[in-house]
Amino acid sequence: MKKTTLYLDTILEFLGDSVINVIGDREGVFIDNLADVANTNETTLDWINPAKANEQQIAENSKAKVLLVDSSIEPIDSKTLIVVVNPKVALAKIGNEFFVTKYEAGIHPTAVVSDGAKIGKNVFIGPYCVIGDCIIGDNTIITSNVRLYNGVEIGSHCFIKEGAVIGGVGFGFEIDDNGNRFRFPQIGSVIIGDYVEIGANTCIDRGALSDTRIDDYAKIDNLCHIAHNAHIGRNAMIIACSEISGSCTIGENAWVGPNTSIRDWRNVGDNSLTGVGSVVVKDVPSNEVWAGNPAKPFKNR
Amino acid sequence: MKKTTLYLDTILEFLGDSVINVIGDREGVFIDNLADVANTNETTLDWINPAKANEQQIAENSKAKVLLVDSSIEPIDSKTLIVVVNPKVALAKIGNEFFVTKYEAGIHPTAVVSDGAKIGKNVFIGPYCVIGDCIIGDNTIITSNVRLYNGVEIGSHCFIKEGAVIGGVGFGFEIDDNGNRFRFPQIGSVIIGDYVEIGANTCIDRGALSDTRIDDYAKIDNLCHIAHNAHIGRNAMIIACSEISGSCTIGENAWVGPNTSIRDWRNVGDNSLTGVGSVVVKDVPSNEVWAGNPAKPFKNR
Amino acid sequence: MKKTTLYLDTILEFLGDSVINVIGDREGVFIDNLADVANTNETTLDWINPAKANEQQIAENSKAKVLLVDSSIEPIDSKTLIVVVNPKVALAKIGNEFFVTKYEAGIHPTAVVSDGAKIGKNVFIGPYCVIGDCIIGDNTIITSNVRLYNGVEIGSHCFIKEGAVIGGVGFGFEIDDNGNRFRFPQIGSVIIGDYVEIGANTCIDRGALSDTRIDDYAKIDNLCHIAHNAHIGRNAMIIACSEISGSCTIGENAWVGPNTSIRDWRNVGDNSLTGVGSVVVKDVPSNEVWAGNPAKPFKNR
Repeated sequence: MKKTTLYLDTILEFLGDSVINVIGDREGVFIDNLADVANTNETTLDWINPAKANEQQIAENSKAKVLLVDSSIEPIDSKTLIVVVNPKVALAKIGNEFFVTKYEAGIHPTAVVSDGAKIGKNVFIGPYCVIGDCIIGDNTIITSNVRLYNGVEIGSHCFIKEGAVIGGVGFGFEIDDNGNRFRFPQIGSVIIGDYVEIGANTCIDRGALSDTRIDDYAKIDNLCHIAHNAHIGRNAMIIACSEISGSCTIGENAWVGPNTSIRDWRNVGDNSLTGVGSVVVKDVPSNEVWAGNPAKPFKNR
Repeated sequence: MKKTTLYLDTILEFLGDSVINVIGDREGVFIDNLADVANTNETTLDWINPAKANEQQIAENSKAKVLLVDSSIEPIDSKTLIVVVNPKVALAKIGNEFFVTKYEAGIHPTAVVSDGAKIGKNVFIGPYCVIGDCIIGDNTIITSNVRLYNGVEIGSHCFIKEGAVIGGVGFGFEIDDNGNRFRFPQIGSVIIGDYVEIGANTCIDRGALSDTRIDDYAKIDNLCHIAHNAHIGRNAMIIACSEISGSCTIGENAWVGPNTSIRDWRNVGDNSLTGVGSVVVKDVPSNEVWAGNPAKPFKNR
Repeated sequence: MKKTTLYLDTILEFLGDSVINVIGDREGVFIDNLADVANTNETTLDWINPAKANEQQIAENSKAKVLLVDSSIEPIDSKTLIVVVNPKVALAKIGNEFFVTKYEAGIHPTAVVSDGAKIGKNVFIGPYCVIGDCIIGDNTIITSNVRLYNGVEIGSHCFIKEGAVIGGVGFGFEIDDNGNRFRFPQIGSVIIGDYVEIGANTCIDRGALSDTRIDDYAKIDNLCHIAHNAHIGRNAMIIACSEISGSCTIGENAWVGPNTSIRDWRNVGDNSLTGVGSVVVKDVPSNEVWAGNPAKPFKNR
């Protein structure tokens, strides 16, 4: 956590119109850390979860003097309440702006970048990356030890974590006259939208005859495998260790739980969720929750 | 995809004896791309799947002018049909020969290669690899960020993808007098045959007192773990995210589905298949299909 | 395996008080290898497993002349028996001391190490590591291509394998006013104790508002994901490809089987075991064995 002291005025200015009200002292009020409940102190910026039944009591018991709250909280002696619609979102924005160290754009001298790569403005490429003839959009961060193959396209504001491998040949084979396997050509590419995250050591294979696609705002966690010709929809979440087989489609806003595996050519519909460890062998329709091996519509277990 | 224009004569010469017949125009006929059905155009080399019931209709509807077909297809106006036994295999061979950019042999200056390594002819070793005292056969490709430990032997024509770790110490521990774990020595090695593929970020641990073995033509996908003393048979396929525990044997031509996990000392027989997400805790006999958690002989679910 | 010839006197001196008795010849007796049963020869140091019913017969049939045995074995003609309480532990200690090549301390010139890193004595840091402002204890080995982020603390005598990523931002997101995901700040760290092992390509994310913690002697295998704010207890074993979600606690001496996945906020109690492929969605109490999807108390399947 970056060391910062934030006075109330700075916080209010940053939050702007999203502040509904401020209750309590303003003069000289400051915070200097974010913390979970076990580590909260007088100068933590705390937030109170509106979903909790005993929200008012939690707020009163907080050791912090400055709280982000929703409008259902009553005034509390000697605390400053910043009233917003969504306290956690407000906390997240403050944390990202003031407590997170930002990447400084630049290409590390050890990165091996092809002359044919087209790299946007304000891009960070870290040590020991190997970058082929790719297109990389503005403000994208590529951490370290990342491998991007020729033809890969990555949008703007993306975040690619360590050891990710994007655009490797897909796992498709034919059998030759001697009964041995040989690769079916994998000459599609990988096309990634804006604001996408690719987790550490995650692998995204290039398509066979057409492209593997990851749409805007999709977030893929560490150690996932996205096979050739898969298509991950906008705002979809693919949680750690998941295996998305060839030609699968994951819908918009879908949530693929940790260590899910999905048979090739199967789909998960928009807004659907697969529970941890799901093994998807049939299409999951939109707006449903499935779990199990094989995955089925979820009822309380 | 590499840019290439291929005239019919070149294709026929390359395919040689495997061409049964050519139906339609030959003069000036060329193709310049491979594509899936959505992206096929006039100059695509298309192929027609003999397994489809409406094969003739698919062929007639193709936008392409040159089609690889089997001998059941009737002549089609203004199309050139190249008749072969297996259209997809023919397409794959043409793609690999003419549309895939080949690796140029050589050792990247950033690769850290031990003086004791014995490296064959026409080998590619890419950036940021760390290669111990290994034996590497002719025509093998080792992409980037790969780690090969002392004692590892790799055959010829192998393909080792990014971030693979081969020959790391196995995960075997004893308990000392204070009740704490310490490692059992892992002094075997990893012996890999010819035409083997090891996927990106896949880990193959060295054996404890004898070797871990991967036989000729075995294909291991991304993000797999092959534990100490496992033995992967010839032409076996291990699909992404699978976990093969210590001392397991996978038979010849077996197909281990995505995200399968196999308990230590268990075996999958020759020609057997485990479905996606299988959890194998009993031996799978040869020539069977198993699936589920725990895996059992597969019947329609 | 390092080449070594070990005379009986050296072995006995090394084992010290743990030797209960020596039966048979001592003069000129030596061993020069460790091996499994298929590869045992006259000069192998063999060990006899006291758990086997036919222990005496196995000992008599061994091709080796020097055996580590427990006190239940009778003298055998022309063999030298070294009697100890735990033959396998004795073998492991001899193997580690005499047959395993040790790392020589030092920082490889290609490692990118931040000026702010505090590195203990006798530490090995291998090629292409990227080390932020971390604290690394004495005698710790960091192999190659490892990424340690700012703030990560690693104790002494740890072993961090290739491609491990420690301290990357956790996978926590909020939804902004436009319905798109953005990261919740991840400003905790990762605190790792002494004698801990982290497997190849394993990822351990930093905590959100507090730390992810791995306690002394915990052993984590290859390709595991440990999410933000998880806590792995002392001497716990996390086997390959396991996925430990956010804020999970794994108890002391717990054994998390291969490819287990655990829902966030769930716990595995002290000394408990989850079978291969377990999907843990409820807390596993201490001293129990669970398996299945969803995991339940284990009975014979």
